[in-house]
Amino acid sequence: MTTTTPPDLVAGLAELLPPEQVLREIDDLEHYSHDDAEWADYVRPLAVVRARSTDDVSATVRWAAENGVRVVPRGAGTGLSGGANAVENCIVLSLELMDEVTEVNAAERYAVTQPGVINDALRAHVARYGLWYPPDPASSAISTIGGNVATNAGGICCVKYGVTRDYVLGLTVVLADGEVVELGRRTAKGVAGYDLTALMVGSEGTLGIVTSVTVKVLPLTGRDERAVIGYFPSLEAAGDAVAGISAAGIVPAALELIDHTCLVAVDEWQGLGLPDDVNALLLARIDERGAAGDELADRVAEIVTGSGGSQVERATDPAEIDRLFTARRLAYPALERRGPVLTEDVCVPRSAVPEMLRRIQATAAANDVVIANIAHAGDGNLHPLIIAPEGDDDAKGRAKLAFDRIVADCLDLGGTVTGEHGVGLLKLPGLRDELGDRVLRMHRSVKDALDPAGTLNPGKAF
Amino acid sequence: MTTTTPPDLVAGLAELLPPEQVLREIDDLEHYSHDDAEWADYVRPLAVVRARSTDDVSATVRWAAENGVRVVPRGAGTGLSGGANAVENCIVLSLELMDEVTEVNAAERYAVTQPGVINDALRAHVARYGLWYPPDPASSAISTIGGNVATNAGGICCVKYGVTRDYVLGLTVVLADGEVVELGRRTAKGVAGYDLTALMVGSEGTLGIVTSVTVKVLPLTGRDERAVIGYFPSLEAAGDAVAGISAAGIVPAALELIDHTCLVAVDEWQGLGLPDDVNALLLARIDERGAAGDELADRVAEIVTGSGGSQVERATDPAEIDRLFTARRLAYPALERRGPVLTEDVCVPRSAVPEMLRRIQATAAANDVVIANIAHAGDGNLHPLIIAPEGDDDAKGRAKLAFDRIVADCLDLGGTVTGEHGVGLLKLPGLRDELGDRVLRMHRSVKDALDPAGTLNPGKAF
Repeated sequence: MTTTTPPDLVAGLAELLPPEQVLREIDDLEHYSHDDAEWADYVRPLAVVRARSTDDVSATVRWAAENGVRVVPRGAGTGLSGGANAVENCIVLSLELMDEVTEVNAAERYAVTQPGVINDALRAHVARYGLWYPPDPASSAISTIGGNVATNAGGICCVKYGVTRDYVLGLTVVLADGEVVELGRRTAKGVAGYDLTALMVGSEGTLGIVTSVTVKVLPLTGRDERAVIGYFPSLEAAGDAVAGISAAGIVPAALELIDHTCLVAVDEWQGLGLPDDVNALLLARIDERGAAGDELADRVAEIVTGSGGSQVERATDPAEIDRLFTARRLAYPALERRGPVLTEDVCVPRSAVPEMLRRIQATAAANDVVIANIAHAGDGNLHPLIIAPEGDDDAKGRAKLAFDRIVADCLDLGGTVTGEHGVGLLKLPGLRDELGDRVLRMHRSVKDALDPAGTLNPGKAF
Repeated sequence: MTTTTPPDLVAGLAELLPPEQVLREIDDLEHYSHDDAEWADYVRPLAVVRARSTDDVSATVRWAAENGVRVVPRGAGTGLSGGANAVENCIVLSLELMDEVTEVNAAERYAVTQPGVINDALRAHVARYGLWYPPDPASSAISTIGGNVATNAGGICCVKYGVTRDYVLGLTVVLADGEVVELGRRTAKGVAGYDLTALMVGSEGTLGIVTSVTVKVLPLTGRDERAVIGYFPSLEAAGDAVAGISAAGIVPAALELIDHTCLVAVDEWQGLGLPDDVNALLLARIDERGAAGDELADRVAEIVTGSGGSQVERATDPAEIDRLFTARRLAYPALERRGPVLTEDVCVPRSAVPEMLRRIQATAAANDVVIANIAHAGDGNLHPLIIAPEGDDDAKGRAKLAFDRIVADCLDLGGTVTGEHGVGLLKLPGLRDELGDRVLRMHRSVKDALDPAGTLNPGKAF
């Protein structure tokens, strides 16, 4: 069963909005039926609404609530956990056309943006005012701020600068009955009432639909970027370097690790000139100002070398920094050439990264699948990329077993089942294990309090 | 009416805990009946419980829930909004004896602390491991971490380093039925489920009672402290300097403003040698490393001078920095010498600080009260201190009128009614104006979902 809703029900929806904003063609319904987590379940939605305003969203949600239809909100559909996958008896509500930055206030250091603005576009926009929006998920070129808020997206510079939640000051939210509220503030500080803004961030559209976001921004100037990279003969040696950098009291602006499988994939595609006997690449960025920053970069290079790192390279020129980060940038597309990628996202204590990577290797061997690893090593946030050859259903089944094993191992090491991608559908079983019954009941209570009819993205996030 | 509870009810409570942990003497009940917001309402509690463990808290809350008694949690009682003031038919549950830092993990950069640990004591404890806990409310020598979490306390370095919420990774919480849950995590990142940790922070004990706090800490090293101070002939000139520092892309580690009334009070007490024709003192701290930090301090000094600042002084020696900040440190006690102080706490856009200070002066004149101002100018967070002579009830009434006028003006300028002290009881009317009916109903829904019987600190926070 996909739907038992009578056709004239959706016709009622079409009367609320201009015809080009309500899509009902099969191709459109298919296109909007899931995000990038095709491994998770999805069905065909009743219709797709492309909102242009808060009023559009409010009217749509009100219509849905009155007609017992569910609403699955969606940004660019780049999610990796199935948070935007369509469920039974739903419409998909796309915010992608709401793509304007509506205000930038340099004196107060905030920007107000619609949810459909692409992360990189917001960064570029505020840069024109001498401002910087730090959160930089790897999807920054394609994912929207609304989606970033819905999943509390992290990124590469988050090890030093924090995640999306740390930059969200306020939100305009359409509630489950279609009413519109303003949450949070525009001032630098404020503790007026419960932090409903933080509650909304990361709630994956299950408590409200965000139609405007006020973000804190920082001055654009005052950072001097430098890169330091080094190859390591073993995961342990790379782990020693990560621990050494931390023990030296250095907080890098990025600290990324790429494992052997990943390096080989990039090398075969692009010809990195991979050294022999290499098992990991560590990439660091240091952005303190001036000579003090140079000195920190010296110390990072010393720690890398002292931990067994070789072919240590440094850069300060932006183009050269980009070149040194090539393997990081190309890792995901290099692996996708080998087949569909099931992207994992777990976070463990920093010191457990080598052990977690060892267990992942064992899991790959035990399940006869290829698993490559990109890790935000400075955060302990790993992205094992599980690859199944195209069309090989048996391999796909083994990939899912490996996925579950990795989640279990992460919990065993004191970690969390999602570092930055969100729970969506794929992490629901792991979440149950992590939170336990009582905390899940708290989630249910909060959900029922704010969306008693279960209109908004039901079955996701917890 | 203070209570209609039969005496044997509290006797039942006394059986749950060692006798020295359940206080029933009148003097004790009086002592624990209110926090530092004596201007707000309070009654005498039925009893005071001094918990030593999560189990104590759980048993107490369970007893209270079963017997229809309310629980008002309390740390050191230094709150300024009445959040810990006793209500009808309540026991006060003090966490002050739970004063141990139970774990410090330097590799993962977190510490686990009981709620009764004093803010400065936590900072000193983690410093022994080379770590730094930044949030520094002015009450840091006397307020507890549990109270800081309950109010989402800010402080002086928050302009650069953020507030309490930004450092809370996880919590142990006793819920309204006495059950114990672990919220959040110990990893650097994590988005597993709703951010119930952030929801608890700042909720003033109305959703749960925090019995353990896992805080993120930073490396202790790597900052070079410098102070720059200057006197200004007008609030406008000081406001120009604040705006100029922001426009230069400089984020100071502190940026405090002290107004004329405050300066005169300190000068009369301690003899600052206050220059003539002075209306404000601006105090900045700059903590970037090395020569780049020195250069920033140069630019701050230039901006201060260029905005009309005089007697500009600089320091790098810790003792000398302390000396330059003397007026800030002594402002509150200097004013308390003049009579009971009603402490206000509002936050406006940074650029509205001079206008807000002008309105406060007008409010002082209109109501014939003395109002002195300390402001976290870099955050737009003002603390007007309204002083009424001891025993002058008429002046006390006028002080309350001034308090309400300041709240209204702050909202008029786009601000929030509490920047860092919390809503408690004193800010309930202002909060209603700020949030509006629908958002208040969201608060009520969340409260009812997590504390349906209204056991925990009823009537506070919203």
